Amino acid sequence: MGEFDLIKRYFDRPELRPGPVMALGPGDDCALLEVPFKHQLSVSSDTFVSGVHFFADMAASKIAQRCLAASVSDLAAMGATPAWFNLCLTMPSADESWVDSFSQGLAVQAKHCAISLAGGDTTKGPLSISIHAMGWVPIGQAITRSGAQIGDVIMVSGSLGDSAAGLQIMQHQRDAEDALSQRFWNPTPRIALGQWLRNRATACLDVSDGLVQDLGHILKASGCGADLQLQDLPLSTELQAHAALSRAHNYALNGGEDFELCFTLPPHLVSQAQAYSQLQKLPLTAIGYVSAKLGCRIWNGDKGLFAPPQGYQHF
Amino acid sequence: MGEFDLIKRYFDRPELRPGPVMALGPGDDCALLEVPFKHQLSVSSDTFVSGVHFFADMAASKIAQRCLAASVSDLAAMGATPAWFNLCLTMPSADESWVDSFSQGLAVQAKHCAISLAGGDTTKGPLSISIHAMGWVPIGQAITRSGAQIGDVIMVSGSLGDSAAGLQIMQHQRDAEDALSQRFWNPTPRIALGQWLRNRATACLDVSDGLVQDLGHILKASGCGADLQLQDLPLSTELQAHAALSRAHNYALNGGEDFELCFTLPPHLVSQAQAYSQLQKLPLTAIGYVSAKLGCRIWNGDKGLFAPPQGYQHF
Repeated sequence: MGEFDLIKRYFDRPELRPGPVMALGPGDDCALLEVPFKHQLSVSSDTFVSGVHFFADMAASKIAQRCLAASVSDLAAMGATPAWFNLCLTMPSADESWVDSFSQGLAVQAKHCAISLAGGDTTKGPLSISIHAMGWVPIGQAITRSGAQIGDVIMVSGSLGDSAAGLQIMQHQRDAEDALSQRFWNPTPRIALGQWLRNRATACLDVSDGLVQDLGHILKASGCGADLQLQDLPLSTELQAHAALSRAHNYALNGGEDFELCFTLPPHLVSQAQAYSQLQKLPLTAIGYVSAKLGCRIWNGDKGLFAPPQGYQHF
Repeated sequence: MGEFDLIKRYFDRPELRPGPVMALGPGDDCALLEVPFKHQLSVSSDTFVSGVHFFADMAASKIAQRCLAASVSDLAAMGATPAWFNLCLTMPSADESWVDSFSQGLAVQAKHCAISLAGGDTTKGPLSISIHAMGWVPIGQAITRSGAQIGDVIMVSGSLGDSAAGLQIMQHQRDAEDALSQRFWNPTPRIALGQWLRNRATACLDVSDGLVQDLGHILKASGCGADLQLQDLPLSTELQAHAALSRAHNYALNGGEDFELCFTLPPHLVSQAQAYSQLQKLPLTAIGYVSAKLGCRIWNGDKGLFAPPQGYQHF
């Protein structure tokens, strides 16, 4: 099966277009897309490499779900509405059953995120996936990393460390289906939360390389520091059952790819966030404060400062 | 040198932003971009794999120039104005001198195309480059593949087959600098021509997989056929000096990656195209006609039908 037949059969499917309408979808030199009036296009590109970002022998449907979720998470972190994505798929060979499974997983996640496949490329080479996610946000309302103010409360959504624990589990059992493993292969982009945080959060990002490292980006961009409380890190019951507390803390601080949102909120808006949290049944946990003193300090109750581990290093 | 230092030093440079202004450039979860009012976003994504699309031991600056030109060519083929691009760079290691050279080549081509780097990703893995090129076009004026009409004249810009010949030369000499090799590593996206063809050409694409194969996309999308004249294929003097005529014809019909535009024009506009060609010193050559009979026939003067070779097969 050649490149064009492959694209036609597995990627030119209505199930992959559950998002906003496209003036021109896949199949031409370019896709043609219309951003609503008075909105900005928000775009993010990510590459996922076999053996680095996922296991080569994971189910292809899970690889697809994971990669698309991770890409859309960047849109969520800006408060953007997901709209379209381009997919570049590089494969050693055109294995139809693999592509079929990949395409099905992609459709599941595309529906979940209401995002449409607009185009892309298939090439021969070592397995890797590059996704270009596009969305929109009203002009001036995107949440960047640089607006954190001294005194803001630092909050995170959901729970931290689950994905890192799930990765450990899947290293031994590729088809693991427990709650922690699912957080690795099927993370949830916090799309609705990101949009709710527009005009509320002063800074926001998604936790992809580990809380300490990622929060560091906000602090650096905003020119401030942070004081966190170790005991306030939100740990799931599954993670606490799976790992001793010290290891769970390590996962929560250092383990990447939870794709939860970490954001800074003026103190007077915390009660609004708590009400939103209850209504949406999505935990939003205050884990510390933005402070004037540069750097990120993690306090371990009475025991004083806790030495944070390092986040993921790509090279 | 870590990922973030690498990006900061080699990719967060003003030389890489010679294109339209960005509301928010590299460094956050997403870039924020504004498409002009009453214009559509045109987007195209391409992956370039080491050993498939370029030689791993080519100068990194040449790899960058080639990849960005090939990506922008898709915008040109729609009649779009290049604006921004995202770059996903996957490398086995963070070799600073390689990245420095790559970044310099990227800046040269970005300036040539007036396109700005908006963001992207660097990851560890087998060398490959994925580029997401974005531009804009007035609503309704993009040139698709599906509008060719019976009786239209089929034209191509520049000359065909040079890049395939250059590839052959570089297989033996990686640092070849002759005119044919340059057409491989430094192709020229026909940006101005693409925009001139708006509201004139009925269909257009760029020749990336070989003339016969690519023209086939126009014919299929438009539901018609073509009759070409072998002797009318534009061959450069360099190609004719380098290769016997039969091999030159093979390169011109089958060799991809010339990134010339192939377009269909109503007959009454051909004289306008000839005037444009003279003014811009860019050859525009009529090579045949769109016909009702499906398929693409190549006529070899008195000798009747010529059997066309096959275009590039990705799998």
